[in-house]
Amino acid sequence: MVAILKKDASQQQIDNLCSWFKDRGLGVHISKGESHTIIGLVGDTTRIDIDLLQGLDIIESVRRISEPYKSANRSFHPEDSVIDVGGVKIGGGHFAMIAGPCSVETRDQICAVAQAVKASGANILRGGAFKPRTSPYSFQGLQGEGIKLLEEAKKLTGLPIVTEVMDIHQLELFENVDLIQVGARNMQNFELLKELGRMERPILLKRGLANTIQELLMSAEYIMAGGNENVILCERGIRTYETATRNTLDLSAVPVLHEKTHLPVIVDPSHATGIARMVRPMSLAATAAGADGLMIEVHNDPKNALCDGAQSITPEQYDELARKVNCVREAIK
Amino acid sequence: MVAILKKDASQQQIDNLCSWFKDRGLGVHISKGESHTIIGLVGDTTRIDIDLLQGLDIIESVRRISEPYKSANRSFHPEDSVIDVGGVKIGGGHFAMIAGPCSVETRDQICAVAQAVKASGANILRGGAFKPRTSPYSFQGLQGEGIKLLEEAKKLTGLPIVTEVMDIHQLELFENVDLIQVGARNMQNFELLKELGRMERPILLKRGLANTIQELLMSAEYIMAGGNENVILCERGIRTYETATRNTLDLSAVPVLHEKTHLPVIVDPSHATGIARMVRPMSLAATAAGADGLMIEVHNDPKNALCDGAQSITPEQYDELARKVNCVREAIK
Amino acid sequence: MVAILKKDASQQQIDNLCSWFKDRGLGVHISKGESHTIIGLVGDTTRIDIDLLQGLDIIESVRRISEPYKSANRSFHPEDSVIDVGGVKIGGGHFAMIAGPCSVETRDQICAVAQAVKASGANILRGGAFKPRTSPYSFQGLQGEGIKLLEEAKKLTGLPIVTEVMDIHQLELFENVDLIQVGARNMQNFELLKELGRMERPILLKRGLANTIQELLMSAEYIMAGGNENVILCERGIRTYETATRNTLDLSAVPVLHEKTHLPVIVDPSHATGIARMVRPMSLAATAAGADGLMIEVHNDPKNALCDGAQSITPEQYDELARKVNCVREAIK
Amino acid sequence: MVAILKKDASQQQIDNLCSWFKDRGLGVHISKGESHTIIGLVGDTTRIDIDLLQGLDIIESVRRISEPYKSANRSFHPEDSVIDVGGVKIGGGHFAMIAGPCSVETRDQICAVAQAVKASGANILRGGAFKPRTSPYSFQGLQGEGIKLLEEAKKLTGLPIVTEVMDIHQLELFENVDLIQVGARNMQNFELLKELGRMERPILLKRGLANTIQELLMSAEYIMAGGNENVILCERGIRTYETATRNTLDLSAVPVLHEKTHLPVIVDPSHATGIARMVRPMSLAATAAGADGLMIEVHNDPKNALCDGAQSITPEQYDELARKVNCVREAIK
Repeated sequence: MVAILKKDASQQQIDNLCSWFKDRGLGVHISKGESHTIIGLVGDTTRIDIDLLQGLDIIESVRRISEPYKSANRSFHPEDSVIDVGGVKIGGGHFAMIAGPCSVETRDQICAVAQAVKASGANILRGGAFKPRTSPYSFQGLQGEGIKLLEEAKKLTGLPIVTEVMDIHQLELFENVDLIQVGARNMQNFELLKELGRMERPILLKRGLANTIQELLMSAEYIMAGGNENVILCERGIRTYETATRNTLDLSAVPVLHEKTHLPVIVDPSHATGIARMVRPMSLAATAAGADGLMIEVHNDPKNALCDGAQSITPEQYDELARKVNCVREAIK
Repeated sequence: MVAILKKDASQQQIDNLCSWFKDRGLGVHISKGESHTIIGLVGDTTRIDIDLLQGLDIIESVRRISEPYKSANRSFHPEDSVIDVGGVKIGGGHFAMIAGPCSVETRDQICAVAQAVKASGANILRGGAFKPRTSPYSFQGLQGEGIKLLEEAKKLTGLPIVTEVMDIHQLELFENVDLIQVGARNMQNFELLKELGRMERPILLKRGLANTIQELLMSAEYIMAGGNENVILCERGIRTYETATRNTLDLSAVPVLHEKTHLPVIVDPSHATGIARMVRPMSLAATAAGADGLMIEVHNDPKNALCDGAQSITPEQYDELARKVNCVREAIK
Repeated sequence: MVAILKKDASQQQIDNLCSWFKDRGLGVHISKGESHTIIGLVGDTTRIDIDLLQGLDIIESVRRISEPYKSANRSFHPEDSVIDVGGVKIGGGHFAMIAGPCSVETRDQICAVAQAVKASGANILRGGAFKPRTSPYSFQGLQGEGIKLLEEAKKLTGLPIVTEVMDIHQLELFENVDLIQVGARNMQNFELLKELGRMERPILLKRGLANTIQELLMSAEYIMAGGNENVILCERGIRTYETATRNTLDLSAVPVLHEKTHLPVIVDPSHATGIARMVRPMSLAATAAGADGLMIEVHNDPKNALCDGAQSITPEQYDELARKVNCVREAIK
Repeated sequence: MVAILKKDASQQQIDNLCSWFKDRGLGVHISKGESHTIIGLVGDTTRIDIDLLQGLDIIESVRRISEPYKSANRSFHPEDSVIDVGGVKIGGGHFAMIAGPCSVETRDQICAVAQAVKASGANILRGGAFKPRTSPYSFQGLQGEGIKLLEEAKKLTGLPIVTEVMDIHQLELFENVDLIQVGARNMQNFELLKELGRMERPILLKRGLANTIQELLMSAEYIMAGGNENVILCERGIRTYETATRNTLDLSAVPVLHEKTHLPVIVDPSHATGIARMVRPMSLAATAAGADGLMIEVHNDPKNALCDGAQSITPEQYDELARKVNCVREAIK
C-alpha cells in the first residue's frame, strides 16, 4: 500500500500517521519528494481500511498494491482450485454442466427434467426451492417441500443438487444439498456469508447485480476467512442502462477472475439474458471465454413454468447445446 | 394490465389464455384489431407475474396500467402517511433531522455527539452497531454493545434512536431501538423484510445501490403486506459510472416517490457522496426537492473515526447546516 | 403502435387524437374497455414521435409493436446483408478479420504490421489517422499524412483499409479509404451520419459508450435513409460501473442484433477491454456468440506505441489468435 | 504524477523510463522501497498520456496528483469566472434564468414565450433550431429559419439568445446567437470543440449522457486551449439503469464542479427528468445545490409542441417557479 501525502502535511502529522501504521504491525518506508511525501507500507495490509485513510486530511491518495483479499488471491495460491460437489469436480479443467428448472414444481417435473438433462451430459441438477421474488405477491417457491423433491430427483439420477438459500435459518433444511447457492441479491448478506464460512459444503456465489468483480472476491473472502474454501463464483449479468436483455452478461469477468483468483468461475446465461433464444449463443461465448461451467435453466414445459419461463430452454434444445459446448471446449484447447 | 398478442396467435391459444386469467379472478376484455388482438384485464393484477406472461409464445408485450404494489400506493391512500418514531413525527410536513456517527465507538463519543446534534435541532439519533463492511477484515461494529451505548445516549438526551439490522437473528437486541434501519445491501433480503413486516416498529428502508424506485416500493410492500405500515423510505445514492462521488445521489427520486407513494421519503447525503464537503449543498438540495428529512453523519472527531470518517461533518458544521435547512424549508413553502 | 388512454380522457379529446393520427395517414382502431380506451394504429408509424405522444395529458402509455427503423429491420429484409469492402465480403457467413495498429505512426510501422497480420489471415487493415482523444494535449493522430501511409500499406499488401472520420470536412481525404469508421463518440453525430448516407462507401458504425442497441440501429437508419445501405455494426463495449476492464463488452448484443437487423455485426475486443491479455478470450467468445468479424489492435512494438499500447497484441499473438478463431468458427457451425 | 513500478522492473528499464520522462521536460524523483520503486514527476504532466504509461510492462500503477486540465482548473484561477452573454453576466453570484421552448416553431410561438418568460424574470431566451433526434424520421428543427425567428424574438424582448449547433458548417448561421450550445451528444465532438475554441462567443457545454465530470472538464479544456475561455458548463442528467425519469440528474456534479473549476455551472432539469411535474422540485434543488443558473423549457401550448412537450411547463408555472427560485437563492446565502 502506498499513501501520497498532501503538500501541506506537517512533520507532526506524518509522525503520528507512521506510529499508527507501526501499531498495526506494518513496516513504513518514507520517501520525501520535492512536492509530496510518499509512504510505502510493508506487511499485511488487508486489515487496513482504505476508506478511512482516504478520509484523513493529510492524505492526497492511497493505492493498494496488493489486493485486499488473501484466501481467494491467485498470488498466494497459483494453481486452480478444484471443488468437489458430491463427487463431481469443478475447476482446473473440470467443467460443470448445471441444468434444471428455475423452480421445483412437482415430483414429475423435477424428475423428468433431471433425467433428460443427465442424458444430455449435465452433471449437476439445479432447481429453486426458496425463490427471491421482487413482489410479495409472486410465487415464493415450494420451500422445504421443494428441497425434498430435489432429493428425490438426486436419488433417481445420481446427480448432485444445487439450490439457493435466502436466510441463515433455512440452512437446517440443506443437509442433503451438495452445493449451496447464494443468489445475486444476497452477495453482500455478510451474516449469511459468515455462517456459510463455518460449514464445509461447497458454495456457489453469484455476483450481485451491481457489484464489481473485486466486491465478488471480497464476498468469497468472507466465506473463506471462516474456513470454507469450497467456493465457486458465478457471473450472471450486471445491471446497466441497456434493456434489450434483462441484464448485461459481463463475459470479460471470466478472464479477469481467472487472473485474480484460483476459484472456479461459471456463467449463468439464462438469468443474464432472460431470453431463451439467447441462451445458446451466450453459452458458447462463455465457454469460449474460458468459463469452468454453465448453469442453464431447462424446463420440460417452459410455457407453463411457474416462474421465469421466458428464459428456459427445452430438454431438446439443451441436448443440442451441450454437444456444441463440447465442440467449443475442444476448439479452444 | 393490457396484453398485446402476436399476430399469429391462434383462437385456441387465446381461449386458453383467457381461461387462465379468469381462473385467477380477473375480468377479461378482448379487442380484435386488424393486426393484433389486445386483452385488457380488470381486477387485482398485483398477483399476476408479468415476467411469466412476457415469456409466453403468443404474447407480444404486456403493460401494467396499475402499479404492482397496493399498500404503498398513493392511489389507494392519497394522504401522506405520518410515521411516529418514539414520539417524533415524520412525513406530512413533519421533518426528520437524523444525525449521529457512522459507528458507535465509545460511550463518550456517542453521548457527546448526541448532545451536540440535539442542541442543533436533530430529533433522532443515528449510530451504527452492526456494520456491513465489504471486507471481512474491516471493523464490523460494536454489535450488541453498540446498541447498549445508543440506549444510554437516548436516556441522556431523550432522542429516539435508529440503527441498522443485518440479519433476523439480531432483532432480539433491537427491543429499545425506535427505528430499525434496513441497509442498501439488504433492500432485497426478502426474508428479513417479511420478518420486519410481522413487527410494529417503524422501519427505515434504504434504497439499494442498483435498485429502481419501483423495486424500492416493492420492498416496502413486502413489509406492509405483513401488517407493518410504518415504513420510511431513504434515497442514499445509486451506483453509476461516475467516480467523483462515491455514489450518484438521485434527488429526482424524491418527487417521483412522492407521486407514487404516501410514505415519507428522507435523504442520506453522507453515504451518497462520501465526501464531507458535499454534505451541506446536497442536504439543502434534498430539502428543496421536498424531502421529509435528512440523515447525516456527524462525528466529534471525524479524522479518528473508526469508519467512514471521510464523509462525517463536525457538530459545528451540523449546527450551521441545520439552520440553513430551516431557511430552505421556509423558502419552498 | 398501441396507445392506452387515461381513464378520464373525454370523448372530445379522443376524437381530436384520432383525427391527428388520421391526418398522418394512419388507420385507427378504437377499443373501449371497462376502465381504459385503447387505440391501435395501422400503417407506417416510424414517423410518429413516441415521446410526443407520451407527453400528452390523456395518454397513459404508448407501445410500439413494430420497430421505429425500416431499412435496417430484418422483418423487411430477412436475408443477411453481405457488404463488399474493397473486394472482401462481410456478413452472411463471410468473416471480417480486421487488424492493425491503434494509430498509424510511420511507414515502416504500418507496412510491417500490415504484412504480418495479412500473413496470419487478416483481410482488412485498420489504423487510426484522426484520433479522438479526451485531452486536447494528447497526440491527435497523423491525420492526412496517416491516411497516405495507410494507402501505401494497402498498395503493398492488397488489404482494403478502414480508418475513422471525425468530421464532415475530413471526408475529402477519404477517397481511397475502403471502409469509413464512425467512432463511438460520433455514433449520434447526426449531421455526419446524414453526409455518409449520401455516399456509397461502406460504413463501420461503432456503438456509443452509453447507447442502446435500438439507438445503434436508429443511427444505422440515418445512414441508410440517405441511400447508403452498406453499414456494418460494431459492438465495442459500453460504460458501466465496473472498472476492472475499460468498458463492459456486451456480447449479448451480437445475437440481439442478429435478430433485429440483417446488417453484419463485428466486435472490437481491444477497445472494449483495454487490456491486451483479455483480447484472446474475448475474441473467441465474440466468435462463439456468432459475430461476423473481429477488429483487433496489433502493434509490432506495443510498449512504444504512441497511443493505447496497453490493449495491443503482438503479431505473434495475433497469429495464434487467428488460428483459434477459425477453430471456434468451425466448432459452432 | 506518481508511478509505482512493478517488483521485477530491471535497472535498465527504470533508466529508460526516466530518460523518456526527462525528454518530455519533467523532473524525476526516484524512491526505492523494499518491494517497490516509486517515481515522482515534477513539472507539466498534462501532456503525459496516462493510458500509455499504464500499458507499460514495468508499471504497476500511475496516479495523477494534479488534474489533466489547466485552463479550466480552479487551482490556477481561484476566482469564479463571470461570463458575459450579450450583456447578461453568469457566474460569480450572477444567476442565469434561461427559458424558452424546446423547438422554435413559429414567430408567434417564440415571441409569445419570450415575452412571457421575460416578464417572469428570465434573462436569456432558449429555443432549438437544429434538433438532434434519435430517428431520421422525426422533426429535425426549422434550422436556419429557426435562428431567424429567435433573432426576431431577441429584437422584440432584448433577451440574448442561446441555441444548439450540431456541426461546424452550421456556424455561419450563428452570427447573432449570443450563446452557442453544444449538446450532450456532441460533448466529445472534438473537431467542433476545436472550432469553437477559435471563436470568442460564449459556449454552453452540456455534459454527455455517459460522461464523467472530468471528461466534461477536458472538453471545456479543448475549447479553452484554443483561446476561448467563455465556457459555461451544464449538468443535464446522466444515463443510468433507472427508468422512472428520462435520465438521472446528478446534482452532486454542481458542488464537485465548483471545487474543480472556476467556470459557471448551470442545470437543465427539463431534459434531465423529461417530466414537466419534476421541473419545479429539481429546479429548486439545483438552486439549493449552488447552481449558477437554470435552463428550463417553457411552452405556451405544451400539449401541441412539436417536440418534447412532455417536459415543458407553461408560462404560468414558470412564473411561480421563478419566484420560488429567488426565495431559495435568498435562503442559502
